[in-house]
Amino acid sequence: MSIALIAGAGALPLALVEAARAAGAPRPFVAALDGFAPEGLAPDLTFRIERLYPFFAALHERGVTRIAFAGAVRRPRLDPALFDPLTAGIVPRLMATLAQGDDATLREVIALFEEDGFAILGAGEVAPALLPPEGVLAGRITPRDQQDAARAALIVSALGRVDVGQGCVVQQGLCLGAETLAGTDAMLAGVAALPQDLRPDPAGGRGLLFKAPKPLQDRRIDLPALGVQSVRNAARAGLGGIAWEAGGTLCLDLPAMRAAAEETGLFLWSRPPGTGA
Amino acid sequence: MSIALIAGAGALPLALVEAARAAGAPRPFVAALDGFAPEGLAPDLTFRIERLYPFFAALHERGVTRIAFAGAVRRPRLDPALFDPLTAGIVPRLMATLAQGDDATLREVIALFEEDGFAILGAGEVAPALLPPEGVLAGRITPRDQQDAARAALIVSALGRVDVGQGCVVQQGLCLGAETLAGTDAMLAGVAALPQDLRPDPAGGRGLLFKAPKPLQDRRIDLPALGVQSVRNAARAGLGGIAWEAGGTLCLDLPAMRAAAEETGLFLWSRPPGTGA
Repeated sequence: MSIALIAGAGALPLALVEAARAAGAPRPFVAALDGFAPEGLAPDLTFRIERLYPFFAALHERGVTRIAFAGAVRRPRLDPALFDPLTAGIVPRLMATLAQGDDATLREVIALFEEDGFAILGAGEVAPALLPPEGVLAGRITPRDQQDAARAALIVSALGRVDVGQGCVVQQGLCLGAETLAGTDAMLAGVAALPQDLRPDPAGGRGLLFKAPKPLQDRRIDLPALGVQSVRNAARAGLGGIAWEAGGTLCLDLPAMRAAAEETGLFLWSRPPGTGA
Repeated sequence: MSIALIAGAGALPLALVEAARAAGAPRPFVAALDGFAPEGLAPDLTFRIERLYPFFAALHERGVTRIAFAGAVRRPRLDPALFDPLTAGIVPRLMATLAQGDDATLREVIALFEEDGFAILGAGEVAPALLPPEGVLAGRITPRDQQDAARAALIVSALGRVDVGQGCVVQQGLCLGAETLAGTDAMLAGVAALPQDLRPDPAGGRGLLFKAPKPLQDRRIDLPALGVQSVRNAARAGLGGIAWEAGGTLCLDLPAMRAAAEETGLFLWSRPPGTGA
């Protein structure tokens, strides 16, 4: 067993394990950060940031050489009493990057794993089925949707460059929501709650949710993800569909997403990167 | 009577009229876009976009030579039956800019007024008291607040460059909210509703609301604005204070804002532009 999955909260870790199984790969060793349990997946080991080096040692003992990250991890609160001496030594490094935002912190965590001899795999390498090919995968897109997706790609790129978020909602050129810490579902709930008179006439275009990685992020971790809940919430927000950067956005269960999209009349568009933005 | 105020919704038009009166200036002629009535201020004239040129003629008749814009105007729905022939001729121009976002549309509207012979005044020229000088105007700011304000200024600049919004909320380097169409109060309500476990420990810094104009916007119209409600909503969202770009952000009633800030323990910081961002 040479691959360990560092599993955060949410449905992505289970989706990744299942996609790997469907592809005939052995089940990865699953480690979860204390307090961020994955959904529907029992971790083989739970670890704490305060004891990162003992955790590394436990992984080495099990023959783990490659690591994949999947799922949401917020900044854990650290308990000074729990640090082992080795891990305590990297606290200044971690604190310095925490001040620079989540992206910098994740890069630093990757660097710590790599310095200890682990190779980092992207989720797409462990489970290529989670990265759908380019194309319109449900419904139909209009020229208006193409314009909105191009504008949304520009906005998400701007948000990503300042390490804010990986998604936004655009309708007829207007940005109705920008993703921040609260995540995609909270953003879509905000759009659903917008007073009708603030929204453009849906006859002119229903708008879309768009997701893409941050321009400068390490694509081996923290790729944006979509699931069947994203489709249902986008429908509740009155949107016409979902577009994402093909190759840079994970779809947790594409068949279920397509079924939900057909049912709610939404399009799903795996959009080639760099198109017309 | 040579100045006309084009008044949109919200409290800004009345604040501007009162600030002008307090400065001893004559009351401006107040025109309001149909459907976007200002609060507490009876318009002398209501106009519709479909009859923009007859409205220009009415202003010229009254001897209006200078125009100031104040207050929120969303995209009005247009009724094709109401257009006069002259205004109908500019519909293609307006439609082309609407697709490019609100900022482009406002620039086009300004251009139409200027082409018809009006001079455009900034709100700060009509009522300089609405633009407070640089400085900490209530409470105290910490080095952490200064870092958060610098990061927030960078984020608002990025949002503004893609014509999304003029405000954000940052706590300990994390962006908790980005302003879009729904406005500042909706963003603050979203921050107030964030699950506690998503927010950093307030002991490390309570975070702030930050507002600034878009980098490329015409500063004669659509400056961001703050009022006493912003202070109360920032307090409800658990923030430590409000910072804004000095000279580029209108404060509707600074004495009331200061009183509310003292009462709720918030700081108010009129921050010099370009500081440490």
